[in-house]
Amino acid sequence: MPLDPDATTVISALCKVPSFAHGHVRDLRVRWALEEIGRPYRAQLYEGMAPRPDAYRQWQPFGQVPAFDDGQVRLFESGAILLHLGEQDERLLPREPQQKADSVAWLIGALNSVEPSIMQIVTLDIFQAGKPWAKEARPSAVEFARSRLTRVAEALGDGDWLAGRFSIADIMMVTVIRNLDHTDIIAGFPNLAAYKARGEARPAFVQAVADQAKGLGDPIQLGERA
Amino acid sequence: MPLDPDATTVISALCKVPSFAHGHVRDLRVRWALEEIGRPYRAQLYEGMAPRPDAYRQWQPFGQVPAFDDGQVRLFESGAILLHLGEQDERLLPREPQQKADSVAWLIGALNSVEPSIMQIVTLDIFQAGKPWAKEARPSAVEFARSRLTRVAEALGDGDWLAGRFSIADIMMVTVIRNLDHTDIIAGFPNLAAYKARGEARPAFVQAVADQAKGLGDPIQLGERA
Repeated sequence: MPLDPDATTVISALCKVPSFAHGHVRDLRVRWALEEIGRPYRAQLYEGMAPRPDAYRQWQPFGQVPAFDDGQVRLFESGAILLHLGEQDERLLPREPQQKADSVAWLIGALNSVEPSIMQIVTLDIFQAGKPWAKEARPSAVEFARSRLTRVAEALGDGDWLAGRFSIADIMMVTVIRNLDHTDIIAGFPNLAAYKARGEARPAFVQAVADQAKGLGDPIQLGERA
Repeated sequence: MPLDPDATTVISALCKVPSFAHGHVRDLRVRWALEEIGRPYRAQLYEGMAPRPDAYRQWQPFGQVPAFDDGQVRLFESGAILLHLGEQDERLLPREPQQKADSVAWLIGALNSVEPSIMQIVTLDIFQAGKPWAKEARPSAVEFARSRLTRVAEALGDGDWLAGRFSIADIMMVTVIRNLDHTDIIAGFPNLAAYKARGEARPAFVQAVADQAKGLGDPIQLGERA
């Protein structure tokens, strides 16, 4: 039960966010990693729809979550936090050089070669849903995301995890492709759908989602201010 | 002069690409890092507009460049390659824990919090320039990129480099913001414009651009097949 109000390790997370964001805010990635290694942590909550306090920018320059502080270093960006935790615990990042290289490459690949194509669809479907051009822009965005997912599916093949064993690459890739849960795109890739389900079935993931949900509180409606 | 046909370290790069891509293909990031530490390397060239050989997917699942092989590990994703080189040489990645954390956080921030917003503009301006909705979608894309760049500019302040001294974070951020060279957006942030110029003035950057240009050959026209 790593969530512990007295823990030295602290992450930033959100409360009071719209329902579409529930289960998808990126502190989930760090909670999941911390659960995998049984590291106690506490969450400092910020209201999702409110401007962050100015001082928060010293911790997270973009005002996003998660930020991380383990009493030794302060970090921002979920990818950087996962790399830091991976360096500290080989359950998250293999030490065999090629497996480590594959894990880091897939973590970055998830963040830079896959996520932008997926977030483009999320942006069109949710944040720009009312714009007249959003519908016209969607087919090419879906085509691009499918082309990237095709490569991930080919590389995964019938393997369980991207780098041969579970690693931070899978925490990243599973949480990235979960952003398409409002679509049927992942269902079109049976081995990716099974991979996502495999990640979501891990006890650490289940616990992380439950603890994140407790912090998030009840969903609010878009436009409603907390 | 790290470019050496007999080097053990090999990267993948492109030849025969359209003129807009000259000076912006991502192998530049790795060439720059290798020049900073004087590590000899050779470049294996692939035609930019032609499909990659199937075997290349074993090295780079997405078919992109750069991929990297130093005789010990094979890697893909420019961010992962820079992290690997940084682990090997502290001129690229400081060893003081907080400086290292800042370097990794900013490298990931450049890739995940800044680059997607910039590539959205590049996509609209270049790859979707003929689409009727591209012009309508551009203002919100520019507004979003400016909001992210505002945070980078605030965090940089009057410092020379993002993590207090030069690191792989700067190789990444400078090459990311150079993708806006066809616009006047960076000029609107005087300290970022000076930061970019500071990076581009480094001898290692200048050599990397020159060596990349030699490999690229003459620009081709879009639609023309090599």
